[in-house]
Amino acid sequence: MNRDDAVALDRDDPLAPLRDLFDLPDGTIYLDGNSLGALPRTTAGRVAEVVTQEWGRGLIESWNTASWITLPQRVGDKIARVVGAGQGEVVVADSTSLNVYKVLASALSIAAADAPERRVVISERSNFPTDLYIASSLCRERGYELVLVDSPDEIEGLLDRAAVLMLTEVNYRTGYLHPMAAVTALAHERGVLAVWDLCHSAGAVPVDLRGADADFAIGCGYKFLNGGPGAPAFLWVNPRHVDRFSQPLSGWMGHAAPFEMSPGYRPAEGVSRYLSGTPGVIAISALECGVDTLLAAEAYGGLEALREKSLGLTRLFADVVSSRLPAFRIESPLDDARRGSQLSLSIGEGAYAIVQALIERGVVGDFRAGPEDGSAPDILRFGVTPLYTRYVDIWDAVDHLVAVMDDDEWRAERFWTRGAVT
Amino acid sequence: MNRDDAVALDRDDPLAPLRDLFDLPDGTIYLDGNSLGALPRTTAGRVAEVVTQEWGRGLIESWNTASWITLPQRVGDKIARVVGAGQGEVVVADSTSLNVYKVLASALSIAAADAPERRVVISERSNFPTDLYIASSLCRERGYELVLVDSPDEIEGLLDRAAVLMLTEVNYRTGYLHPMAAVTALAHERGVLAVWDLCHSAGAVPVDLRGADADFAIGCGYKFLNGGPGAPAFLWVNPRHVDRFSQPLSGWMGHAAPFEMSPGYRPAEGVSRYLSGTPGVIAISALECGVDTLLAAEAYGGLEALREKSLGLTRLFADVVSSRLPAFRIESPLDDARRGSQLSLSIGEGAYAIVQALIERGVVGDFRAGPEDGSAPDILRFGVTPLYTRYVDIWDAVDHLVAVMDDDEWRAERFWTRGAVT
Repeated sequence: MNRDDAVALDRDDPLAPLRDLFDLPDGTIYLDGNSLGALPRTTAGRVAEVVTQEWGRGLIESWNTASWITLPQRVGDKIARVVGAGQGEVVVADSTSLNVYKVLASALSIAAADAPERRVVISERSNFPTDLYIASSLCRERGYELVLVDSPDEIEGLLDRAAVLMLTEVNYRTGYLHPMAAVTALAHERGVLAVWDLCHSAGAVPVDLRGADADFAIGCGYKFLNGGPGAPAFLWVNPRHVDRFSQPLSGWMGHAAPFEMSPGYRPAEGVSRYLSGTPGVIAISALECGVDTLLAAEAYGGLEALREKSLGLTRLFADVVSSRLPAFRIESPLDDARRGSQLSLSIGEGAYAIVQALIERGVVGDFRAGPEDGSAPDILRFGVTPLYTRYVDIWDAVDHLVAVMDDDEWRAERFWTRGAVT
Repeated sequence: MNRDDAVALDRDDPLAPLRDLFDLPDGTIYLDGNSLGALPRTTAGRVAEVVTQEWGRGLIESWNTASWITLPQRVGDKIARVVGAGQGEVVVADSTSLNVYKVLASALSIAAADAPERRVVISERSNFPTDLYIASSLCRERGYELVLVDSPDEIEGLLDRAAVLMLTEVNYRTGYLHPMAAVTALAHERGVLAVWDLCHSAGAVPVDLRGADADFAIGCGYKFLNGGPGAPAFLWVNPRHVDRFSQPLSGWMGHAAPFEMSPGYRPAEGVSRYLSGTPGVIAISALECGVDTLLAAEAYGGLEALREKSLGLTRLFADVVSSRLPAFRIESPLDDARRGSQLSLSIGEGAYAIVQALIERGVVGDFRAGPEDGSAPDILRFGVTPLYTRYVDIWDAVDHLVAVMDDDEWRAERFWTRGAVT
């Protein structure tokens, strides 16, 4: 395998034209779309139209005339197509953190009614921290115990005491991909509700919420959906649960008739009751461009085709690192079925500085610190977004990594200063 | 008084140049800035820069290089200047609804610790509904009773049982302005915490949170701060309370060190602990333009001068309506000291259709339905934004209203169809 082979893979890649749907900076190999997705070509124009025309000219009337009021549902319906949800089952709202609060609160309300003796919520210690912070707050409020496992193997032994199992389908550090259908089936067999965080899977791997019969799901707009920095998040509720309880962040947009301005809350039917405050029109409009860009892949085989390419990219990455950089340990699963759309590496020292040295060379991945107790290493994390990542990008990224290591370039002092966001 | 007098008032208005800071549609008299503020001239360019340059070129690095990570605090500090808060005391985050949840939760935590026997939260039945929906949810969760008064006079009699008094400084229907300092002082005298919603006052009337010694405050970004449709909201916490409790929507951005990615929540010091998920960069950047545009008024006498003009505008409105349209009842206080930046009218029938007929003529106010029990009338609501509303706009608006009524124009069938947002 050499660079020409990678170039040939791109030449033969039927998804290659999708890269042109993005406005990517020259000279950058961007392998951080799992932190912030790249800018779709349509976004700037659409955002300008929303600001200057819909807001500037239409002003308040655009809530009706530009259909702002149904944006959360309209974009939710588009996201539903990439996560295996039905139409009318997904809304765009708020942030991942706040949506975790809403769906976990509903899951706990259901569990309290159906299985009041179960007082445990299970999650993983390596879950993305915000999920744990929110779960911990809600568990304290409601009198539940949040039990964190260090390995998925420990989950089964806890299920009989559990009310809810809350997992992120693809681990943000390692890219480990849980088998959602099997885990959900096991949870249900043992009387436990399954809440799934799709932040690192929606738009990156095929997700089938209905097929897996999951209970609740939430996900991120700014990673593989390319919705922009801090884009609004989304959530899904299984129709069997949706009208059973209202969620506690019961703002007016979740009311059955917000403009009646009634002092008493009456939740909307369906997933709209998971809305809270006034939707952020500019931000949701930007997110819609990202989702539309992803949906353009439907003409090229959709998420199944994107998944195949994603696995090809991470497999190539792992192969080339293994042969050229044996000092690095691959922290992502080598089993294709268990690997999300990223490759994570670790090394004895200098992970942070190595990432910085790569960034200076135009190869943008990111650093994720290991846990304070040293139970897992610091990580060099490289996300691949099959919509725009090329095989040659992987080859060149590894080439730069070889150079960074060969010359001890990464030891230069300038790579050791931490930014506010690291 | 005639139209020439109104033109003369504009000619002599020292604040008149501020109108040029907005991009207003020709032929519209916009009297709905208390629902959605108008578009500042700087916003479109700044939003385009954030999208194409900071996101498109800078990608993930802009969290550091473009200081995205401190946007909530930076814009919060600017808002602090118009609400009488100190630097470092305000953050921009989420929506009004969610911020009500956060600050009311903290207020209840404080009350539970300091005065556990007090189990009542007082608010007004005519408060903006989302505040009541959220308060009701939280009160149920925490075992408090939410008591709604029909008149401010009833508040005093309830204080001895109350933990928290939660009021909106300027009523969204009538524009009634509570005397914040006096009400807060009375609440404190009786051992009650005061939570203030500034949605209809921030940017419209001088607010002095520190002077009033309020306990908590929240406010809206898309009304008088001109931050755009569904703009993020803000919140303030009195420094004496801020480090006492952490709020329940404890997402990673409120953590003391979010990028340590520790599984346990440790709240940031100060008001940053009231952040939750990842900040919406595009939306907060648009809001910053709105706040900067308001701060441009500091060179013209700031909020005191804006307030004087606002009262001049609503006084003129009330005078002309009283003399030319005696069938309308003025629902806003005629006492300048008790009137916010709007004028609300009612009439025996047809309020909705009259508003629609005005909109067809380019005079944009809005309709607010009265409560279902008929205890208050339907409202024609006209907001004035002294940054861009002219005296002649008021004159012309009333002129159109006279025409709409004289010819029974409003009875036309086309004005009776309700939109999704009314």
